[in-house]
Amino acid sequence: MPPRPYNFSAGPAALPLPVLERAAAEMTDWHGCGMGVMEMSHRGAEFGEIMSRAERDLRALAEVPDDFAVLFMQGGALAENALVPMNLAHHGRVDVGVSGAWSAKSAAEAQRYAEVRRVFDTSSDGFTSLPDPATWRLSDDADYLHLCSNETIDGVEFHDLPDLRALGSKAPLVVDCSSNQLSRPFDWSRIGLAFGGAQKNIGPAGLTLVYVRRSLLGGADAACPSAFDFARVAREGSMFNTPPTYAIYIAGLVFEWALQFEYRGLRGLGAIEAQNIDKAALLYSAIDASGQFENRVTPAARSRMNVPFFLRREELTGIFLAEAKAAGLLQLKGHKSKGGLRASLYNAMPLAGVEALVAFMKDFERRHG
Amino acid sequence: MPPRPYNFSAGPAALPLPVLERAAAEMTDWHGCGMGVMEMSHRGAEFGEIMSRAERDLRALAEVPDDFAVLFMQGGALAENALVPMNLAHHGRVDVGVSGAWSAKSAAEAQRYAEVRRVFDTSSDGFTSLPDPATWRLSDDADYLHLCSNETIDGVEFHDLPDLRALGSKAPLVVDCSSNQLSRPFDWSRIGLAFGGAQKNIGPAGLTLVYVRRSLLGGADAACPSAFDFARVAREGSMFNTPPTYAIYIAGLVFEWALQFEYRGLRGLGAIEAQNIDKAALLYSAIDASGQFENRVTPAARSRMNVPFFLRREELTGIFLAEAKAAGLLQLKGHKSKGGLRASLYNAMPLAGVEALVAFMKDFERRHG
Repeated sequence: MPPRPYNFSAGPAALPLPVLERAAAEMTDWHGCGMGVMEMSHRGAEFGEIMSRAERDLRALAEVPDDFAVLFMQGGALAENALVPMNLAHHGRVDVGVSGAWSAKSAAEAQRYAEVRRVFDTSSDGFTSLPDPATWRLSDDADYLHLCSNETIDGVEFHDLPDLRALGSKAPLVVDCSSNQLSRPFDWSRIGLAFGGAQKNIGPAGLTLVYVRRSLLGGADAACPSAFDFARVAREGSMFNTPPTYAIYIAGLVFEWALQFEYRGLRGLGAIEAQNIDKAALLYSAIDASGQFENRVTPAARSRMNVPFFLRREELTGIFLAEAKAAGLLQLKGHKSKGGLRASLYNAMPLAGVEALVAFMKDFERRHG
Repeated sequence: MPPRPYNFSAGPAALPLPVLERAAAEMTDWHGCGMGVMEMSHRGAEFGEIMSRAERDLRALAEVPDDFAVLFMQGGALAENALVPMNLAHHGRVDVGVSGAWSAKSAAEAQRYAEVRRVFDTSSDGFTSLPDPATWRLSDDADYLHLCSNETIDGVEFHDLPDLRALGSKAPLVVDCSSNQLSRPFDWSRIGLAFGGAQKNIGPAGLTLVYVRRSLLGGADAACPSAFDFARVAREGSMFNTPPTYAIYIAGLVFEWALQFEYRGLRGLGAIEAQNIDKAALLYSAIDASGQFENRVTPAARSRMNVPFFLRREELTGIFLAEAKAAGLLQLKGHKSKGGLRASLYNAMPLAGVEALVAFMKDFERRHG
């Protein structure tokens, strides 16, 4: 059997092979119960065990404090752009930092529910930098401040979340962490609510994780569908609605895999972060050292997860993609709004995958230089 | 290997074994592309093929007319209870027929968005009958009339959808068909919009099907999250949001299986319906003929999909469930709100499964009679 290709998709994205193999092996019969996981009542003992283990492992892995509820929801980050203001914008005033395509979308959707103030907006430099938080125009009466911790399309990441208290704001911080959750530890003391679609570092599309400080629960807008009222979902242990059971099962297998992940003598999320640092460093150095490729993001704001890059000779992009695919390097096409190339280096991408990509890029540059 | 147990879960529910086996075989590599289905970008050619085939097969199977859009959404029927009024209740007036626990929930949620009038309500007889449509108190100005075509908990089913035109109403008919979609042909000419969670006859929980007459699209309430605006979802081919890709893939495999299903010389949905008729007839006759078991629903309103039944000696319920499980008959426990027993006979349940259940019931009655 040939080696498995390396899959650089921005999401839905590569999953760890052992997770897929275990899911395949358990497909028709989970632990001898005579049913596959897709076929179980969400109220039964078997799925109850899967769900509680998934939440326990996620909390252990990401060190989510007890004063946060973890909700397993549906609808993706795009739905959360509406559901978060419906649940939290009690006074109709929201601050948003616009650092890329996703936070711009979040601001536009929040505007349908609240007055939105942009505390910064880097669209003028093409979303290639992050301004110093000391320069942000924070409101003193915002219900919350929304940031996207990692812009999947633009490749811009907050390597530290801002300390809003230190900046003089009392607003809770809301973080769209779809594409960097579980890629590194988060400082939960700075977060009020975080949310993210699962389809990057966690599992199948169709599962949305919401981590919310319990003190923020309650008082959802009258128009908020009951199924998306965070307080209600929290009270019912994400079982108010039938949850996306199979996606939760796969997420649980990913959490188990991540807890046992080892790298450079580390284990768990520390090991994952260390490998993510090494992968990103390797790819950005190769890009910066080349005469053919470029990444336009300011080094301090570069994402470890999503690396958009371009061929200086744009006309070679199609050839690059075709040759890369033939070499077993898949889904490297840039987002349609940006063009060019993009390599997403989520947790399931091993260092060897980035080494293979870098070797291919060098060879490509030699042949087409 | 012992034979696979028969799984009578009300949902998430049993899936056809060949579907699960194929999903397992394709888990790490779909059709030689080097990626599993969970790992594919929803915008890529591979998933595009899976999605368009799934929609095409569903339309062929259920004979969905071209003037209906088929939406692949998230949130389940419970979310639709809010999203349907948000999308359709333009004048804030909704008629609901209350035939069981699910339509009662739909009425309660719709009331948060519109004035709700109950055109009938069978709670007074414990949801065991369906009144003649000629007796319904239809409004002349409702935005739509909502019915649940099959009450999963109460085991009550509309064997014919009402012809609202013939009853003098101009309102579109909205049908929550979560638990009987694809179990039988529907008369689409009587339907304005139908919706249902997938986790009964279609696939994994986390996928919601919405079939909506294109003429009803547009004008969603200002508070409706963009991700749940039916017109927008339709316009973007269910790709406005990242769809639940893996659940759609499994649904597609189920549609393929159903199109090829054969029974008594029939094929496709006709064959499925014929087997469903036989399964239900066999189980209800066994219940009615026994001295030990009873079903309380009026024969004309009995569901083919969900059969709630009770032991006259209630104290035997626990013993029945334990012995049934040991005999390979799983998930027969009644809904917590009703107690007793429930056998769900969705499409993936073969006639042999119902024969095994009936044989077990006879034996149980002999031993505990």
